[in-house]
Amino acid sequence: MDKKKFIQSGMIKFGDFTLTSGKKSTYYVDIKEACTDPATLSEICDDLAGKTIYDTVAGMELGAVPLIVGISLKTGKPYIIIRKGEREHGTKKQIVGNIISGSRIDLIEDVVTTGNSLLKTAKILRDNGAIVDHAVCVVDRESGGEELLKENGIKLESVAKISELL
Amino acid sequence: MDKKKFIQSGMIKFGDFTLTSGKKSTYYVDIKEACTDPATLSEICDDLAGKTIYDTVAGMELGAVPLIVGISLKTGKPYIIIRKGEREHGTKKQIVGNIISGSRIDLIEDVVTTGNSLLKTAKILRDNGAIVDHAVCVVDRESGGEELLKENGIKLESVAKISELL
Repeated sequence: MDKKKFIQSGMIKFGDFTLTSGKKSTYYVDIKEACTDPATLSEICDDLAGKTIYDTVAGMELGAVPLIVGISLKTGKPYIIIRKGEREHGTKKQIVGNIISGSRIDLIEDVVTTGNSLLKTAKILRDNGAIVDHAVCVVDRESGGEELLKENGIKLESVAKISELL
Repeated sequence: MDKKKFIQSGMIKFGDFTLTSGKKSTYYVDIKEACTDPATLSEICDDLAGKTIYDTVAGMELGAVPLIVGISLKTGKPYIIIRKGEREHGTKKQIVGNIISGSRIDLIEDVVTTGNSLLKTAKILRDNGAIVDHAVCVVDRESGGEELLKENGIKLESVAKISELL
């Protein structure tokens, strides 16, 4: 997907935004909202799928879920969802899907900023027996994520880097 | 999808289970887990898509999300996700996706028991301008859901009723 399509699809918007951190920004990246359009979702899943290297994809609730579901339907690879936060009931599992011990899994994410969220996902998968050394995101905001993940043995690839879209 | 496939795919399991309500049950329905296999997800989404009657599908986080994403990719219809619970940040929206005021939307759910969860989803969509009078689920546990929804102007259809699977 090229810069023009990122803007046309609404995945990146320009204006005056206040981020959840309180910081001001002149742009806003929202993959989740834009992907409710199936043509956009389909194209971005093709791009992501082309960068996956293993036989299973995994991602954190909620942003990554449409992406891993789309990749899964397109490639026939099963998916794993990591659920966020505390469960209401003890019987709810944090992991949806089957982790084969010793298997390698591609991490999928919509937007990577510091990389902390993706690293948390990787740790949960590793604690459950998976080998995680590769991640693919839609937009890399180039705010330390690639470096943090590299320090933790994970190579990050992206469909687009934020510097290419601005 | 027939009874045999429901069992083979693990969507319905037999044994001794304690439900989150504390009740004992001799069977357990788990669509979310079984749908991490793309062949199962693809088949169930075909079944659901065939019962939709409007141009947009909507569902509650998290169980319905793989279903609405699959239907959306297969049919080209956009989707709407209703997020669960309180948002961590004020800027997070409860609704992901675009509700066109006055438009009709198919509600999608994995399992319907009492119908309360689906009715809550319907109310949020109605409060935001949508017309909701039709819902499609994978398994109807036949525990009052169809009746509750009917009282609230919503016709429930299912891929399978629990009585057909036991």
